[in-house]
Amino acid sequence: MSQTLAYAAHAADQPLAPFTFERRRPRPDDVAIEILYCGVCHSDLHFARNDWGMTRYPIVPGHEIVGRVTAVGDEVSRFRVGDLVGVGCMVDSCRHCQPCRDGVEQFCLEGFTMTYGSDDRRDGHFTQGGYSDRIVVSEHFVLRMPEGIDLASAAPILCAGITTYSPLRHYGVEAGHRIGVIGMGGLGHMGVKLAKALGAEVTVFTRSEAKVEEARRHGADHVVVSTDPAQMEAVAETFDFMLDTVPVQHDLNPYLAALKYDGTHILVGLLDPVEPAVEGFNLVFKRRVLAGSLIGGIEETQELLDFCAEHDIRCETETIDIQDINAAFERMEKGDVRYRFVIDMASLKA
Amino acid sequence: MSQTLAYAAHAADQPLAPFTFERRRPRPDDVAIEILYCGVCHSDLHFARNDWGMTRYPIVPGHEIVGRVTAVGDEVSRFRVGDLVGVGCMVDSCRHCQPCRDGVEQFCLEGFTMTYGSDDRRDGHFTQGGYSDRIVVSEHFVLRMPEGIDLASAAPILCAGITTYSPLRHYGVEAGHRIGVIGMGGLGHMGVKLAKALGAEVTVFTRSEAKVEEARRHGADHVVVSTDPAQMEAVAETFDFMLDTVPVQHDLNPYLAALKYDGTHILVGLLDPVEPAVEGFNLVFKRRVLAGSLIGGIEETQELLDFCAEHDIRCETETIDIQDINAAFERMEKGDVRYRFVIDMASLKA
Repeated sequence: MSQTLAYAAHAADQPLAPFTFERRRPRPDDVAIEILYCGVCHSDLHFARNDWGMTRYPIVPGHEIVGRVTAVGDEVSRFRVGDLVGVGCMVDSCRHCQPCRDGVEQFCLEGFTMTYGSDDRRDGHFTQGGYSDRIVVSEHFVLRMPEGIDLASAAPILCAGITTYSPLRHYGVEAGHRIGVIGMGGLGHMGVKLAKALGAEVTVFTRSEAKVEEARRHGADHVVVSTDPAQMEAVAETFDFMLDTVPVQHDLNPYLAALKYDGTHILVGLLDPVEPAVEGFNLVFKRRVLAGSLIGGIEETQELLDFCAEHDIRCETETIDIQDINAAFERMEKGDVRYRFVIDMASLKA
Repeated sequence: MSQTLAYAAHAADQPLAPFTFERRRPRPDDVAIEILYCGVCHSDLHFARNDWGMTRYPIVPGHEIVGRVTAVGDEVSRFRVGDLVGVGCMVDSCRHCQPCRDGVEQFCLEGFTMTYGSDDRRDGHFTQGGYSDRIVVSEHFVLRMPEGIDLASAAPILCAGITTYSPLRHYGVEAGHRIGVIGMGGLGHMGVKLAKALGAEVTVFTRSEAKVEEARRHGADHVVVSTDPAQMEAVAETFDFMLDTVPVQHDLNPYLAALKYDGTHILVGLLDPVEPAVEGFNLVFKRRVLAGSLIGGIEETQELLDFCAEHDIRCETETIDIQDINAAFERMEKGDVRYRFVIDMASLKA
């Protein structure tokens, strides 16, 4: 066992605070990792505050982990001490069901093991995340950092990146397609960069005039201010896809109306009831599709890391010390981050 | 011009009553048809009563038309006098947009011309439907009745049939797939027969214990009483598709939960707001799809007629005289029909 320094939430209404606990002794198929960077995802905040009613305390958040291998078990074949690696939202799954065999472990029929907040499926210990100095993860769920990738800005690729990339690939977004990206935050700005790199023509939908220039700077071909009915009317029935990254309730109908027939609206952020209600005719009359998508599989996440290295796609990040995590949570809640906080884990030892 | 006998709605709150009007003189590409049978669709009722706020009176409903060719224009090459033919929901479209070129005229970018209730796109006259003794339709929108098909029971294939067949084909339903058919009415019972003929394993979802035996009789492999939570729980995450024929608001969430990951819920009857609201997580966590579908293209409708003849698939019908149409509307509203009324148009001359 190894003593692990971390920051944990100890209760829903308390700020994150220092915490120490034991990581498991590496099993034969395990990789032990010294954590260098960890991205700060909105889910971390939801978990810390028990917004989804499933949190057990103390909980160490963090599932956008980049680090260096410090030890490997006897059966590990793909990693060696010193390798730069990543860990995303999953650290295990059943590995034998059809989805697992198909490489979509996120749909494991028995449920995947979350990087934090799950019971380990072998010995039942409670998993803890990346706001810590080390982690031990089964080889299958460890990603390889491609040569030359910027480590800090690569961390959010493991959640924000794969969450937007997976549906683009699943639905075959490519050159010739017109795609709208709704919301210009951690997920949205990655969606813009990835859809552009895949060859699509990208329009950002934002409620805020202030984000128009920003969206263009990150590669959007066009920007539509969604609160302007004239701008929305002008794009009616022109899109093949909408990538909807907005995590709060919003009216999908104006966006559905902007899809061509056979167009697809993909939800990646909205877990709540879809209200205001979708009008049935908006789907039926044009054979449109409303779909959801959840992170991505391990193989696909590796593909994305390699793709980002090849195309020099970086998440825009602001690096913080772990001691600033509570202020970062507050700023994130207000949308005051461009676009993702990444914790420099060296600060944990300061 | 030719004098046409018909039944028309003259106002939203009045019963259908006899009506005479002139059909257009056949154009060079037109087929003139003596109507033998016309199915009674729920849309006919909605139109007659102006439920959708778009009705102009007097209106002659009817878009499940089977008849015999009585004359053809000079340019008509596919039909001859005496041929048995059909006309469905569409009698024209722009014919040059991408959807028209792709054979999905129902998605014509300029809007298709409805069999009744539209302005003809060439001379602007108001189209009138099949509750009448004759109709004149451009060749492209005329279907050929395959040899040996039962004419009366074939009429509803032109709307109820194609509405359920088109999404089954679009989504590639085939042997090995498990599909749920929600609602056991005009559309639902055709969905069961067609999905079975395509090789799928079919489960009917019904609120009514009384329909269990009925559903089995029409080919359902299984029946789930959807008001029984235990039965719904037992089928969680087991379906590839849901074909949802229910035209009134209902909670989709229990059906979404019954879909496997990547499963697709297809709406063909619901045009109203989708309430109760769909839970975002029901789509996101399992990459599920909520889709709409609208009738089908002309080529696909011909394919379906041929398919029905080959597999001896018939719509279950109750034949009525045109004089009974108002009573039929009332019974249809109460769900008191197994499963489709078809008007024997000989009664119009009685």
